[in-house]
Amino acid sequence: MDVLEAAFHPRAIAVAGASETPFSFGYHFVRHLLDYHYPGDIYPVNPAHKVILGLKAYPDLTSIPGPIDYVICCLPASKVLDLLAQCPSRGVKVVHLLTARFSETGRREAADLETKILQEARRLNIRLIGPNCMGIYYPRGGIAQGYDMPQEAGTVGAVFQSGGLSDTLVRYGEVQGLRFSKVISYGNALDLDESDFLRYLAYDDETKVIAAYFEGAKDGRKLLNALASAARAKPVIAIKGGRGTAGIKAAATHTAAIAGSDSMWRTAFKKTGVVQARDMSELVDFLVAFSYLPPIRGKRVAIVGGGGGMSVTAADACEEAGLVVPPLPPEIREELRAKAPEVWDWLGNPVDGSIMGGISLDFQSGPGQIPRMLARSPQFDLIVAEIAEEAPLPEEIWTAIVRMQAEEMINLHGEQLKPLVAVVSDGKFNSDQFQDWRWKLLAEVRARLVAAHIPTYSTVGEAAKAMRRFTDYWQMRAET
Amino acid sequence: MDVLEAAFHPRAIAVAGASETPFSFGYHFVRHLLDYHYPGDIYPVNPAHKVILGLKAYPDLTSIPGPIDYVICCLPASKVLDLLAQCPSRGVKVVHLLTARFSETGRREAADLETKILQEARRLNIRLIGPNCMGIYYPRGGIAQGYDMPQEAGTVGAVFQSGGLSDTLVRYGEVQGLRFSKVISYGNALDLDESDFLRYLAYDDETKVIAAYFEGAKDGRKLLNALASAARAKPVIAIKGGRGTAGIKAAATHTAAIAGSDSMWRTAFKKTGVVQARDMSELVDFLVAFSYLPPIRGKRVAIVGGGGGMSVTAADACEEAGLVVPPLPPEIREELRAKAPEVWDWLGNPVDGSIMGGISLDFQSGPGQIPRMLARSPQFDLIVAEIAEEAPLPEEIWTAIVRMQAEEMINLHGEQLKPLVAVVSDGKFNSDQFQDWRWKLLAEVRARLVAAHIPTYSTVGEAAKAMRRFTDYWQMRAET
Repeated sequence: MDVLEAAFHPRAIAVAGASETPFSFGYHFVRHLLDYHYPGDIYPVNPAHKVILGLKAYPDLTSIPGPIDYVICCLPASKVLDLLAQCPSRGVKVVHLLTARFSETGRREAADLETKILQEARRLNIRLIGPNCMGIYYPRGGIAQGYDMPQEAGTVGAVFQSGGLSDTLVRYGEVQGLRFSKVISYGNALDLDESDFLRYLAYDDETKVIAAYFEGAKDGRKLLNALASAARAKPVIAIKGGRGTAGIKAAATHTAAIAGSDSMWRTAFKKTGVVQARDMSELVDFLVAFSYLPPIRGKRVAIVGGGGGMSVTAADACEEAGLVVPPLPPEIREELRAKAPEVWDWLGNPVDGSIMGGISLDFQSGPGQIPRMLARSPQFDLIVAEIAEEAPLPEEIWTAIVRMQAEEMINLHGEQLKPLVAVVSDGKFNSDQFQDWRWKLLAEVRARLVAAHIPTYSTVGEAAKAMRRFTDYWQMRAET
Repeated sequence: MDVLEAAFHPRAIAVAGASETPFSFGYHFVRHLLDYHYPGDIYPVNPAHKVILGLKAYPDLTSIPGPIDYVICCLPASKVLDLLAQCPSRGVKVVHLLTARFSETGRREAADLETKILQEARRLNIRLIGPNCMGIYYPRGGIAQGYDMPQEAGTVGAVFQSGGLSDTLVRYGEVQGLRFSKVISYGNALDLDESDFLRYLAYDDETKVIAAYFEGAKDGRKLLNALASAARAKPVIAIKGGRGTAGIKAAATHTAAIAGSDSMWRTAFKKTGVVQARDMSELVDFLVAFSYLPPIRGKRVAIVGGGGGMSVTAADACEEAGLVVPPLPPEIREELRAKAPEVWDWLGNPVDGSIMGGISLDFQSGPGQIPRMLARSPQFDLIVAEIAEEAPLPEEIWTAIVRMQAEEMINLHGEQLKPLVAVVSDGKFNSDQFQDWRWKLLAEVRARLVAAHIPTYSTVGEAAKAMRRFTDYWQMRAET
C-alpha cells in the first residue's frame, strides 16, 4: 500500500503540537525521532517556539520550506481541522492523530467532529492513522512510540488497536527475545483501519510473523478478507479484546469499538487460520515459538532437566495441554542398559534428573548424553528442557550446575538435532532480592538462552500451551 | 499426634552420616541446624570424624551421652537397618530417612529392604518419615531443609510428597509473601503417611492454611478421613501430581506412588472441601489469598489502575474466570457527575485510568478518589487494582506515577473499606536488565505491596482465577 510506504519511509516528518515540556506527547515524539535517528528532516510545529529540542520550530505547516510526507499530530481535537487544511501545501500523505477524545467519549459533539475530520481528510486526499493511538514504531526507520524500545529491528509485525498494549508487547516481548519489524497502534481506525494495516504487513518482506490486538472491526467482510490473505502469507496471532459484557463496554469507551460477539470472532479466526491468544502473555509466548522454531507438526515431547516432583508436574502439564509424552523407546532403553546398568530400567520420560545422581548422563552432570539420545530419536518431535528450579545446595555448587544445564541446552540447540524449548522460572522478583544470587542466576541463564534464540518459558504449562498451539498451526497448514 | 511433637520439638537431634564434605546431605543437614539456631543438642554421627562443623562427632548413636528424640539419616540404604538397631539405646522416637533408592527404583531387592526397615521400625517402636524425602522445615524450631529458607515463621503448613517441590513452595512462596509454620516432605510414606501429617497440621495452632502435594495415597479411606477433618478445621489447598499416563508413571518412579485415577482424586477433594490447584504457581497464588484476605463470598469486582487496553483485557480475564464486573452504580455516577463533569458519563468499570488524564481522581494523579468510592460501595465485593505496566514516559515521571499508585493501594488497603488485590507484572527479568529502572521499579513496588500483606499477582488472569477459587471456597463453607 503506497500510502503506508509514505508513513514508514517519509522524506520528512512534522510534529504538530511539538513542545518543550517534558511531560507532553509533543515533546516525546520529537525526542523519539532524534533518539532513534530518523534520517529525514524533522519539523517541530508550534507558533510559540522558535526552537524545540535544538531543532528550528515552525508556526505552521505552510511555513515549512520542504515537502512533508508524514505528520504526527499531538494537537487537541479542536485544532485538527485547521491542521488538515494546511496539509496540501506541503504534500502531506499521512497524518497520525495521537489526538484523542473523539467518538470514544460517547459524546455526540466529539463524534460529529471526528466525522467531519474524516470527510475533510478524504476531500484533501490525506490518509489518517488513529485518532486516539500511538502510531508507528519502526526501528529500521528511526520512528518510535516510546522511550527505551529496542533500536534493533526484528521480524515481528504488529497491528494493535491499543497503544498501551502495543507498548507492552514491545517491552515484554523484547525480554523474551522478540524484535519487531513494524508496529502500528491505530486506535479508533477512523480512516485507515486494521484491514489496511494487516494487508500491508502481509506483503511486507521485513515481517515474518504478525501479532494483532483488535477491539472491534470497522468492516467485518473487509477484515475477514484481510485476515485470510495475511494468514495465507505468514502466521498471524491475534487477541480479541472485549469478549464479555464488561470487556465489550470497556472496548467501546476505549476506542469506540463495535465489538461484535465473541463467537463471531472465534469463527473468523478459525476460518482464516489465525491463531487466537487470550492475553498478552500468551501472545508473546506464541510469537516466540513462531519466531524461533522450525515448523513442527508432531506432538511427542521428551522432557529433561527436572527432579522427581518437577518431572511429575511437567508430564501433567504437557499431557493436559494435549501433547504426548511417550515412554522411552526400546533402542534408548538398550543404550541406557549398557551405559547406566544401575538405573536404566528406572529411567523414563520425563527423565528424572535426580535418578542419575552422580552418573554422568544428564544436564546436571556434564555431557548431556540422555538429552542427546532423545534428540536423535525419531520417536520424539520436540524436547522440553527445564532448568531445575531449586535445590538445597550452597551458592557455588548450584551456580555451577545451573550454568552447565544452560550450556548443555545451548550446545544441544546448536547441533540442530531436534527443536528444543527451555523452561526457566522467572520467580517473582523482589527489589531487595535483586542481589540474591538465586534469582540473579536464573535471570542470567534465561538471558543466555534467549540470546541463543531458544524459546524460553517460565513454566512447563506455558511452554506446553505454546507448543500445542504451534504444532496445531503447522498441522492445520499441512492439511490445507 | 505425640510422635510428631517429638519430631518438631526434639530435645536433641542426631545426624547419621554427618559429613564435612560440602556437597553432601550429611553436611547440609548439620549446617542447617546450626544456621537456623536449633536450640537443642546436635550430634553428628560418623565413625571417621572426631569433629564435624565444629561439633563433637560420634561413631554411632550408642556412644552419644544423652537422649535423642529425632534422627536425620543421610546414610545409604544398606546401613539403615544397623542405624535402627542403635535407636532404642538413646530413646529415639522418629527417624527422618533422607536415604533413597528403595521401592521407587522398581527393583525387587530395594523394595524388600524397604519392607524390612518398616518391620524393624515397628518392632522397635520407632516412627519413620520418608524414606526418599527432605523431612522437616520448621523455622520456629530451628530445623530447615535447605539454605536461604526464611528464618521468619508464618502460618502456612505444608504436606509435600516431593522434597524438590516443597523447596520450591518455600522459596517462591516467600517472594509472594508466604511464611510457613511447618513443612513436611515425606517421600515414599513408608510408615508415617500423608494422612498422619494432615491430621497433625489440622490440629496445629501455628498453622492457619494447609498446602499439600500428593503423588499417591497409602490408604485411600484413611486419607479421605484426614482430608475431611483437615478441611473442616482450616482451608486445605492441594495438588495431585501424576494425573495422566506419563505423570502417573513418573510418580511411580519418583516416590513409588500408586496414583489412583485422576477422577477419584478430584471427587475426593471436592467431597471433602479441599481446593485443588493444578500446579505450583496456582498453589502459591491461592495460598496468598487464603493467607491475607478475609472471607469473601461475593464475586462482584471493581477494576482500577490500568489504561484502555489493560481495562479491556482485565474485564475479559475477570469475566472469563467467573467473576462479575458490574457497571458503576447510580450513586457513584452521580458523585462523578458532580466531581468530574467532563468525563463522568464516559467512565465505567473497569475504570480506564487514561480517561482521567489530568483530572485528580485516580491512582495516577493522587488522592485516589474513585478507588475509594468503589471501596465504599456495597455494590462491589472486591477491588482489583493494577499498576499500569508501561507508558511511553521518561524515568522520573513514570517512577513518580507508579510509586504513587502503589502508595494509594497501600493506603486504601489500610483503611479496610474493602478487600483489595494488586496486579504488578513481574516481566521476564533478564540479568543485564537488572539495572533497568523499569523492571527495578516494578519489583520495588511489588515488594512494598507484598510487605503490606496485599495479595499481589503478576497478571489479572492469575488474580481472577485465585479470586474465583477463593470466593467459591467461602461460598461452599457458608452452605455447608
